[in-house]
Amino acid sequence: MVKIAFAGVGNNASALLQGAELARRSGDAAITVSGCPAIGGEGVQDIVAVAAFDVDEAKVGDDLAAAILAPPNCYPRLVDVAETGVVVSPGPVLDRPGTAAPMDATALSRSRAEIVEELVASKAEVMIYGLPTGRPRAAAFYAECALGAGVAFVNCTPEPVARDPGTRAAFEAARLPLLGDDLASHLGSSVVHQTLLKLLRDRGIVLDSTFQLNVGGNADFANLRLCPESKLATKHNALRLPDEDGDKVHVLPSAGAVKGLADQKVAFIDVAGRGWAGTPVHVEIRLGVQDSSNAAGVIADLVRIGALAARKQVGGFAGGAEFLFKAPAGDGPASCDALAAGIAQLEAHRTLDRVPAGNA
Amino acid sequence: MVKIAFAGVGNNASALLQGAELARRSGDAAITVSGCPAIGGEGVQDIVAVAAFDVDEAKVGDDLAAAILAPPNCYPRLVDVAETGVVVSPGPVLDRPGTAAPMDATALSRSRAEIVEELVASKAEVMIYGLPTGRPRAAAFYAECALGAGVAFVNCTPEPVARDPGTRAAFEAARLPLLGDDLASHLGSSVVHQTLLKLLRDRGIVLDSTFQLNVGGNADFANLRLCPESKLATKHNALRLPDEDGDKVHVLPSAGAVKGLADQKVAFIDVAGRGWAGTPVHVEIRLGVQDSSNAAGVIADLVRIGALAARKQVGGFAGGAEFLFKAPAGDGPASCDALAAGIAQLEAHRTLDRVPAGNA
Amino acid sequence: MVKIAFAGVGNNASALLQGAELARRSGDAAITVSGCPAIGGEGVQDIVAVAAFDVDEAKVGDDLAAAILAPPNCYPRLVDVAETGVVVSPGPVLDRPGTAAPMDATALSRSRAEIVEELVASKAEVMIYGLPTGRPRAAAFYAECALGAGVAFVNCTPEPVARDPGTRAAFEAARLPLLGDDLASHLGSSVVHQTLLKLLRDRGIVLDSTFQLNVGGNADFANLRLCPESKLATKHNALRLPDEDGDKVHVLPSAGAVKGLADQKVAFIDVAGRGWAGTPVHVEIRLGVQDSSNAAGVIADLVRIGALAARKQVGGFAGGAEFLFKAPAGDGPASCDALAAGIAQLEAHRTLDRVPAGNA
Amino acid sequence: MVKIAFAGVGNNASALLQGAELARRSGDAAITVSGCPAIGGEGVQDIVAVAAFDVDEAKVGDDLAAAILAPPNCYPRLVDVAETGVVVSPGPVLDRPGTAAPMDATALSRSRAEIVEELVASKAEVMIYGLPTGRPRAAAFYAECALGAGVAFVNCTPEPVARDPGTRAAFEAARLPLLGDDLASHLGSSVVHQTLLKLLRDRGIVLDSTFQLNVGGNADFANLRLCPESKLATKHNALRLPDEDGDKVHVLPSAGAVKGLADQKVAFIDVAGRGWAGTPVHVEIRLGVQDSSNAAGVIADLVRIGALAARKQVGGFAGGAEFLFKAPAGDGPASCDALAAGIAQLEAHRTLDRVPAGNA
Repeated sequence: MVKIAFAGVGNNASALLQGAELARRSGDAAITVSGCPAIGGEGVQDIVAVAAFDVDEAKVGDDLAAAILAPPNCYPRLVDVAETGVVVSPGPVLDRPGTAAPMDATALSRSRAEIVEELVASKAEVMIYGLPTGRPRAAAFYAECALGAGVAFVNCTPEPVARDPGTRAAFEAARLPLLGDDLASHLGSSVVHQTLLKLLRDRGIVLDSTFQLNVGGNADFANLRLCPESKLATKHNALRLPDEDGDKVHVLPSAGAVKGLADQKVAFIDVAGRGWAGTPVHVEIRLGVQDSSNAAGVIADLVRIGALAARKQVGGFAGGAEFLFKAPAGDGPASCDALAAGIAQLEAHRTLDRVPAGNA
Repeated sequence: MVKIAFAGVGNNASALLQGAELARRSGDAAITVSGCPAIGGEGVQDIVAVAAFDVDEAKVGDDLAAAILAPPNCYPRLVDVAETGVVVSPGPVLDRPGTAAPMDATALSRSRAEIVEELVASKAEVMIYGLPTGRPRAAAFYAECALGAGVAFVNCTPEPVARDPGTRAAFEAARLPLLGDDLASHLGSSVVHQTLLKLLRDRGIVLDSTFQLNVGGNADFANLRLCPESKLATKHNALRLPDEDGDKVHVLPSAGAVKGLADQKVAFIDVAGRGWAGTPVHVEIRLGVQDSSNAAGVIADLVRIGALAARKQVGGFAGGAEFLFKAPAGDGPASCDALAAGIAQLEAHRTLDRVPAGNA
Repeated sequence: MVKIAFAGVGNNASALLQGAELARRSGDAAITVSGCPAIGGEGVQDIVAVAAFDVDEAKVGDDLAAAILAPPNCYPRLVDVAETGVVVSPGPVLDRPGTAAPMDATALSRSRAEIVEELVASKAEVMIYGLPTGRPRAAAFYAECALGAGVAFVNCTPEPVARDPGTRAAFEAARLPLLGDDLASHLGSSVVHQTLLKLLRDRGIVLDSTFQLNVGGNADFANLRLCPESKLATKHNALRLPDEDGDKVHVLPSAGAVKGLADQKVAFIDVAGRGWAGTPVHVEIRLGVQDSSNAAGVIADLVRIGALAARKQVGGFAGGAEFLFKAPAGDGPASCDALAAGIAQLEAHRTLDRVPAGNA
Repeated sequence: MVKIAFAGVGNNASALLQGAELARRSGDAAITVSGCPAIGGEGVQDIVAVAAFDVDEAKVGDDLAAAILAPPNCYPRLVDVAETGVVVSPGPVLDRPGTAAPMDATALSRSRAEIVEELVASKAEVMIYGLPTGRPRAAAFYAECALGAGVAFVNCTPEPVARDPGTRAAFEAARLPLLGDDLASHLGSSVVHQTLLKLLRDRGIVLDSTFQLNVGGNADFANLRLCPESKLATKHNALRLPDEDGDKVHVLPSAGAVKGLADQKVAFIDVAGRGWAGTPVHVEIRLGVQDSSNAAGVIADLVRIGALAARKQVGGFAGGAEFLFKAPAGDGPASCDALAAGIAQLEAHRTLDRVPAGNA
């Protein structure tokens, strides 16, 4: 069993818990990026929530099974998730996106100590951080809580947590995994765009101009239209462009929110180039995905890698997880082969299993 | 200078000669698949036609510079090509696509000996075979002519020439290059489709169904709608699918001819799959290219590789050219790196330069 | 209640019967082209099958409720249709698409008299003819059977039945409705293409070139690729082009069969034109529909119009049904307003209700 | 000859002047929305600029022929426009988009009297107002200047000028035409979207959800992303939706600026609905146009209608011009037929021709 805690009970939590429930019911191996039925002996069906934090009064105080379906969450209801016994706990409000001014102390309605205590009591092994983009203080706060509680940390957002040298050093010192930043998608617009641009380069096509637009209906898209900076940086990074092509590329992480799409995401990718005799090459792509499934198929690997690394007392960035992030803190190759190798290496790692803090 | 002969004066010949003329005028390196400004010391600006064969009375008897613009050719006129001094010579009609019956001898209006004599007199180093798809007898005939004249042979079509063991052995014995079969496109629907399907497999997405449609306005598309078999086989081969996915893929090499597109080609690629929790992934691609530019950017590399190999007396399939064909006779890796390595190896090859047959 | 007979138990029959069943269960008005909850007092929920003919041994002899789901039928199973008590009866094989030679008499395994007798016994009011495209003899045969049995006839296919002057005169003389030819789609590629081209003309845009491709996975698409002529003619007719634009339009009724699409249909429409200062205008459309729903939403209106006209003894083409066909036999305006008016006129028609032949 | 003045020398001015120059050179009738070679006896070739105002120092002080090509203008150079003799004159800066605070008097560097004097001296008959969206004060200012100078006014932007009751009354009292607001495009995303939605309604398809995204590279798109409100209102208005569908529609007038597109505009329109038996209907449209050609093909009609109405002393909204605006001040039908009728009516109007103010 892999015990997880959520910082943010959004659509990703809904997708992860419903997918785990479906895996338990069907008995089939779930579809994840790694393709591994088991990581460290744990399958998707073994993922279990033990704690959750949110600020939305429609979720706080409810059982997690109900909270994942509360609006504005809009991931489809694929299966009935049984009551979890986990009640969503209130978290502090630390950032007001769009304002630069520092928060005053009173905004911090819950202390770090309280959250740490809850985490320890829950025996969580991995915390999944997934608040809306643009809340760097919240990201830092929950990372400190995880560190204090001896819990591995997965940062799904573009905030620089795993890339922050101080935070990373602290997790390494504590032999705690710290995996981030900014989830790659199971199959997202960045990897499709990057793959196409690489293909053109390999074939000698000269790039003239390319753009990528993303729209969707969940809360992420409204947030992104307002504060696209951190997302934009990791999006560009994810395209792995040669320097000379940088200014030919235009990415709009959120072209805007289209409420009717609910949790679906649509990306439009357009590439214009030239081949032989200067004649035009034009590629247009439309990618339609279930946005939060795209995240959950990656998170399901990360929580198992995080739990395995925690048990093996391997701290910091680990497990060949570069492939799973748009802005990975690690500097290894970002490929499915490297991921498979990293997982195998972790599984073979000879360290006494850690007893999670507070679980003694 | 690289001296070439055309078997078939279609749009590919038009694109190749106009592109070479543009390269001579601009002084810039042309855009080709390999990205090599020079192969064996020869640039695109060094490619010169010395012989040409066709059966169309609108072309036979005219200077090549005029013939490449004669309908049904429909490649755009990008530049005025000066008179070449090469008059298009008549070739035999050997196949009637759609009929299985053997041709009688009288159909062969010109003998092999006549064609060989012309080739020798022209001092051609490489013949480019590019008759419409579905004429296996013509392909075999011209290959024999090239062999007889000591001329390297490039088969742009899906007919099995380089893959034919007997033909290949004969070229190897004569130390003559034989490059084929079925041109990869500079950037075509096969490689885009293949790249996308591989990306999905790498990310763990389960393929449900995918199709690929191609339409264009040149003569190739009308021919293909009638006899798609040889093309279809190499198209499927080009997708490099795992066995279990074979029946999920539907390729229509020519969905039909759309005259208004002239030499433009439009491909529609559609992929439906499933990710986390069985939720759908849908990718739609529209690829628009100048069909014959897509060929010429590959032929421009092949004729230079062919001439280099001929001069080095390297027979058979050579030069890492697997990357340049949909159904390559060679079994090396089909990658741009392998192509670069193959070219470098040929350039370093230590053989006395051949004096082309009849050029003494 | 509207009693119908099927000539051909394909996907359209499946869509119609499942949709009627859903209407009965939900109690909601079904979605049809006319938008009329009732025509002549009959709703979609009142449509009931009483006879059916087919040549496929997987269907003949089975209850209609089972036969509509037998492959190659591939319309999705949306609802369980209860046993109908109607056993699919064998029909004659009269055409071999692709051959011009006349059938010999022995191919006609069942006589007209036998079919007429069955129709009369079933008390059917309307026959829906929907064999695969390219079977003009079968279309004529069933029309004669309907005429003989005093049953209204709806021709869903492009075969010229309602447009045949002799056939039409015979139905008019018998005061029997004859509605055809070639179903318009509820929302199909023809009407979308036509609407877009009209918009461009209205706005002064000059048309350069346009194409329309259709692909799907049901049996119709494989048939159409082989014998597209009759379909192509009605497709072009449906675009209602000014004469000067005729040769700028390329329609491929079936670009090919893509089995993975099953009963889904995808149409790609592409329009290139020029506006102010000769600068380009380019419109690309992708239309995805459930092919047989697209038919059933029209048939559901036609059978009710046919029954109403039959009861009113209004023979021939009637009811403003021009809007419902690509190649209507009538010459009234093809608009939704004219349809509404035609239905209202029929409903107001003062004629003693007919007692269907043989139903006395 | 039609003498025009520009308030704002952007891409629309460039498109209009280049198109008029091409019409003079080719002798062919230009392509405009109305399709009228002449309106009030004036062709597109008769349109001549006599005054221009802007705030950009790259344009002010230069001849209009040079100014229309100065960045950030990015309409393609289609033809060399000869020197016009019209020097771009400085205009006041009256709005700072994004701030609600009123401008102080010193921002008004040029008085109304100065602008009026220039207009009168130029003998302009029609002013074309085309500053970037989001500058209501500038729009009001230039309308007052035109009124003061006895010049007809065309408002190309979404600012409410012609819809402002006071402004309209003043122009009517002065018998001066006032045409606005917000140009319809020659062929734009609004009319394509509206036409498609109407088609679906006419066919009985139930609308589930639809979105429209627009991207482009000119200055308009960057401005719109910042202040979309006025544009959004007219965009929604342009779709002419029934009330019950209002909340199913999501329009993003500017999804963002994609610099690489320069003056091209790409719109993505997506419609999801349901037909028979609740099965899905999905339409995707991609519209690519030259953004400012799309405006110029409408402006070329408006300036001729404006000049004709001015000469006939017909004040206020006139000429059936509802078809030419997204938010027309007039309440007549917006159709090409009504436009043709309105023009004919103006041409037949019996009024002594006005002598433009200051032209005596």
